[in-house]
Amino acid sequence: MKHYKIAVLAGDGIGPEITHEALKVLELIEERNAVTFELMPAAFGACAYFEFGDAFPQGTIDICDKADAILKGPIGLSHEESKKIPVDKQPERGALLPMRRRYNTYANFRPVSLPKALAHFSPLKPEIIGEGIDLIMVRELVGGLYFGSKERGINDQGLRYVKETLEYDELQIRRIMHQAFKLAMKRRKLLHNIHKSNVLMSSVLWNEVMEEVAKEYPEVEVVNYLVDAAATALCLKPTQFDVMVMENMFGDILSDQGGGILGSLGLMPSACLGDDKAYYEPSHGSAPDIAGKGIANPYSMIGSVAMMLESSFGMDGEAKNVWAAMQGVFADGYSTADLSKSGSGVVMISTQQFGDKVVEKL
Amino acid sequence: MKHYKIAVLAGDGIGPEITHEALKVLELIEERNAVTFELMPAAFGACAYFEFGDAFPQGTIDICDKADAILKGPIGLSHEESKKIPVDKQPERGALLPMRRRYNTYANFRPVSLPKALAHFSPLKPEIIGEGIDLIMVRELVGGLYFGSKERGINDQGLRYVKETLEYDELQIRRIMHQAFKLAMKRRKLLHNIHKSNVLMSSVLWNEVMEEVAKEYPEVEVVNYLVDAAATALCLKPTQFDVMVMENMFGDILSDQGGGILGSLGLMPSACLGDDKAYYEPSHGSAPDIAGKGIANPYSMIGSVAMMLESSFGMDGEAKNVWAAMQGVFADGYSTADLSKSGSGVVMISTQQFGDKVVEKL
Ligand SMILES: CC(C)[C@H](C(=O)O)[C@@H](O)C(=O)O
Ligand SMILES: CC(C)[C@H](C(=O)O)[C@@H](O)C(=O)O
Repeated sequence: MKHYKIAVLAGDGIGPEITHEALKVLELIEERNAVTFELMPAAFGACAYFEFGDAFPQGTIDICDKADAILKGPIGLSHEESKKIPVDKQPERGALLPMRRRYNTYANFRPVSLPKALAHFSPLKPEIIGEGIDLIMVRELVGGLYFGSKERGINDQGLRYVKETLEYDELQIRRIMHQAFKLAMKRRKLLHNIHKSNVLMSSVLWNEVMEEVAKEYPEVEVVNYLVDAAATALCLKPTQFDVMVMENMFGDILSDQGGGILGSLGLMPSACLGDDKAYYEPSHGSAPDIAGKGIANPYSMIGSVAMMLESSFGMDGEAKNVWAAMQGVFADGYSTADLSKSGSGVVMISTQQFGDKVVEKL
Repeated sequence: MKHYKIAVLAGDGIGPEITHEALKVLELIEERNAVTFELMPAAFGACAYFEFGDAFPQGTIDICDKADAILKGPIGLSHEESKKIPVDKQPERGALLPMRRRYNTYANFRPVSLPKALAHFSPLKPEIIGEGIDLIMVRELVGGLYFGSKERGINDQGLRYVKETLEYDELQIRRIMHQAFKLAMKRRKLLHNIHKSNVLMSSVLWNEVMEEVAKEYPEVEVVNYLVDAAATALCLKPTQFDVMVMENMFGDILSDQGGGILGSLGLMPSACLGDDKAYYEPSHGSAPDIAGKGIANPYSMIGSVAMMLESSFGMDGEAKNVWAAMQGVFADGYSTADLSKSGSGVVMISTQQFGDKVVEKL
């Protein structure tokens, strides 16, 4: 009997609702496998700040330290609400970035996947979706502008200014490249390298290291794309991509564009892997506007569980089953509100109904 | 009789072909108005580097200095070709960025516009295009990562590293905000402010200044959007946007996404305005792969002429005529290769035919 400790950080907004559904799936997996999951819930995000004065309180750190894997819901407040919290204590700067840094989860995997049968969810025309979109963005997650030094002040002319740095060293670039190439080897052996080397010096170094690492994977075809051109191409011909690798900020923007071409950020789970610890989270925000209404899409959270089963617990088969179960619910013509409008006869179901149907399928 | 000096920088790749068509339009405008245009061609970009060892040679600088407006084609080489030029001499770093800096063209206007009748060009479904897309991105063009200091070296651990800075002061932010608010006042009085204040300190200052400037335009409704959320929204509901304002790098990425949702970067002209000088350019690259084939879309270059007529010469009426003529050519069922595949009975015409048809319509 295997035993795994999972820190469960439900987060803010729609976090608790979608986490609730994801845990149902975990429970079922437990019942039918020789495995037990010890769930360790902990406060994280704006809710933790309001309760403990800290978005990533010590108690939560301790729990995460002990965990074999961390399942994390979305965090954050509305634009207006955020302003009530000091900038450094806000959930992103106060909890999410410190977590990424603490566990050095440098490799963020964001699948952007839409089978042909679900093309109606997408804002893109069916002929653009073709046989389906199935790509993974590999985003560097602990470097770049996110973690560079930041300086704010008044300059000589008496003007407020800000200076923040985008930093990378070759080691940071090399390790994410290896992750991307390894993934490409398991898939179509096609890697799109996203950069902005015509302007950024960091991209010049990025590309140098990419070429060095590429020599170790001679079977992988590398295609270089400027980040702006990639943003165009993701709309015009997303099916050309299989694995895409990029630095932190580019990954933030392009992966959300990925959610856009699928039809909803609710379809975007993700895995954040470090060498010793991994956490799993939806790529989207906490959607405070729809929180508590039972209409959020739990796909991203259940998908994050599937990624955890595969990457942290080696349960590839069950991971596949979870993906298949979710596709099955869609194939039966059901979906949550974010996607039900896009279609021809799609029946709208609640967050909870979606979770129940996934469990049924499983 | 008005007289204007126009520096004509045809640029690289498809630049000369599309510039050729744009000049036909200028000629016609000249014939039927009390205006003469003195065209001053000059070398700029990779072609200038190969001829003069400098992508922005002194001769070109002199011509641009004298000009009342600058019409600039796309520049740049393919990824592989670029590498044959020292990084600092490459056309982007050696010509385009120095030009932006020299003339302090801080306000970049990029219309993303697709009338309902041309919805078939877009990869988006007709119901997403609705009554048409008609937004303008206002991009800060001379600050941020593009112009911050850059440092490359070997660190204490013997690793290659790069450090580059994203810098803004309140003045830089304020002036672009005024441009955006003024434009919003002339349009739907709706301004989307794009930022990433949950991570970037520059966005925190950006938003502070935005709120200060907003007080001067109480009629304008401001909607704040995180850049990642904006990338999603541009796919899912582009019609919600009218004027969007953003810093340099965000503008680079989102505006190319804009080209993606229209169906081609060939539909993206732009105006780059400073307080004393302005230049006009397509937002896209030089497309070396299709250069010389006569298949490039000159819309972006002719549209840039329209923007020049309006912003530099106050010829708003003729500018409108040019836009209308181009829409007319499309409405007659013609388009260049980039767009002809997308449709139902669109007849493919060459770069030159497109130019001729625009002139006919005019
Ligand atoms: C919440 C925010 C800090 C975060 C990021 O920018 O990385 C999110 O947008 C994401 O993509 O995971
Ligand atoms: C060519 C390049 C330097 C330029 C930029 O990044 O600004 C281009 O992509 C643009 O958008 O005008």
